[in-house]
Amino acid sequence: MNRPVIAVPMGDPAGIGPEIIVKALASKDVQQAAEVIIAGNAQLIHKAAVLCGIPEEVERTFNILNIETPGLEQFIPGQVSAACGQAAFEYIKKAIELVQEGKACAVATPPINKESLRAAGVPYIGHTEIFGALTNTADPLTLFEVHGMRVFFLSRHVSLRKACDMVTKERIMDYVVRCKKALEQLGVQDGTMAVAGLNPHSGEHGLFGTEEGDAIVPAVEELQKLGYDVVGPVSADSVFHLALKGRYNSVLSLYHDQGHIATKTLDFERTIAITCGMPVLRTSVDHGTAFDIAWQNKASAISMIEAILLAAKYSRV
Amino acid sequence: MNRPVIAVPMGDPAGIGPEIIVKALASKDVQQAAEVIIAGNAQLIHKAAVLCGIPEEVERTFNILNIETPGLEQFIPGQVSAACGQAAFEYIKKAIELVQEGKACAVATPPINKESLRAAGVPYIGHTEIFGALTNTADPLTLFEVHGMRVFFLSRHVSLRKACDMVTKERIMDYVVRCKKALEQLGVQDGTMAVAGLNPHSGEHGLFGTEEGDAIVPAVEELQKLGYDVVGPVSADSVFHLALKGRYNSVLSLYHDQGHIATKTLDFERTIAITCGMPVLRTSVDHGTAFDIAWQNKASAISMIEAILLAAKYSRV
Repeated sequence: MNRPVIAVPMGDPAGIGPEIIVKALASKDVQQAAEVIIAGNAQLIHKAAVLCGIPEEVERTFNILNIETPGLEQFIPGQVSAACGQAAFEYIKKAIELVQEGKACAVATPPINKESLRAAGVPYIGHTEIFGALTNTADPLTLFEVHGMRVFFLSRHVSLRKACDMVTKERIMDYVVRCKKALEQLGVQDGTMAVAGLNPHSGEHGLFGTEEGDAIVPAVEELQKLGYDVVGPVSADSVFHLALKGRYNSVLSLYHDQGHIATKTLDFERTIAITCGMPVLRTSVDHGTAFDIAWQNKASAISMIEAILLAAKYSRV
Repeated sequence: MNRPVIAVPMGDPAGIGPEIIVKALASKDVQQAAEVIIAGNAQLIHKAAVLCGIPEEVERTFNILNIETPGLEQFIPGQVSAACGQAAFEYIKKAIELVQEGKACAVATPPINKESLRAAGVPYIGHTEIFGALTNTADPLTLFEVHGMRVFFLSRHVSLRKACDMVTKERIMDYVVRCKKALEQLGVQDGTMAVAGLNPHSGEHGLFGTEEGDAIVPAVEELQKLGYDVVGPVSADSVFHLALKGRYNSVLSLYHDQGHIATKTLDFERTIAITCGMPVLRTSVDHGTAFDIAWQNKASAISMIEAILLAAKYSRV
């Protein structure tokens, strides 16, 4: 009965957040793995539970920290509004506080809507920025996990050409050091990290592409001399397959799509984002508020369930 | 009992070819789907069958077209040799002839060794070049198939930066037209082809990367006007997932690793290469001769089985 406590903010009230949360809490796996505190609106959680046919005896086990915010009475499902943006922000703030006060171990987040946040005048564009600001973390690291495979990113929202430019010895060294530290915070001490290759077949010794010889090999060699358990470059067409087989405890992918294609092709719904390198551990679904199907009992809770399970897994450490 | 006839050249005698062929022929799935003619050395096939414990009644069903080549008596498992390179080349030539003479529908190839080919003075560096030359095809198209998902490549063995340069409106149009034609030859008439995006989130309207607006969108729009059932750019982090779910009949990936990561992370051993756009259909395992484990009854036949099944599937059309 020693389940870690996971704080779950309710997300944007007009989106699928309330539905996927109540469905996740009805899952046996979640009940066994975690004790969840919902930071949200108790009335709306009840409404979602009725809509989704959650049995009363299950609903009675819900632990809701009710947070009153103005204007929610008039919210319309699937619509951007300042009231919903403000509410979503307050729920996240409270969830983070719960961890900072030692009342929860980690936060698992459903989606929020960036336009609603903006309409409310919230000065952050999304979750990562809110968490970064409220926990004083300059540059949080994103880690994807799916079927036990862990993938970090050397760069994310930049063009592919720019991502090639960012493959430098210095940046790789900096990232490997930070990723290794983040893994240790998650309790992952053992195992080898693999740095993916940038070019096909890692460039085949300079035949097509020079970044491997110019940046990756020198970075990996210097890191190894410093005692880091890291290898690379490992060709992108086999590194993820080998990580899945357990050869590596994580992969540093060199551009957004390299890691995204690997994780999301393998299992789109079970790919969970973990924001590491912060004093507060956060896992997250990797889908949006799905306004088009909100409050229709259509949304799948698989991703929310996985996010809570993963938060619990890393809280047990 | 109307099984398509598939020609299977024996591959490099010093590699795992003979073993994976006899194991594949012992598989019920292969026996039901195809009538296989092995173009190779009958003595070595028998030796492999004994080594792999193939029951005599199964071995008796083998249809071997025995091809004598000099020097094979002294071959050493796992070793590069001119004799083996020459033999592997003769087997392929014969397999292609079988299709050209109407005695077989397609060729499914085990691995060959490029160094042995070179030692034998064969003037082609690999399978694709041999097939191209012997069937008078200037630029064969490679198609990967795994779990029903089909992936073409706009470019392959060039650096990632060079691959970005090759994302032009003209090249995309040329490839979509050729890919569609190749699909028709395989009997795939229906369905939509998706062109993947190059940059993260397909560049988010030019926010990071301009190739989508400059090349992909204009190419797709012009193709649609010409009547082609094609869409794009579809972000790389979802296009393969959607193809797996059946939304697209194929994906045009824009660089080597984009398609390789998707297929090989999903299922490394079951990713089969199909060389299309030639008068002779060829499927192929996507692994090497594995000289380190050759003639030890260690090699997995999964990939060879899949290659034969896929050749049979597309021959039934």
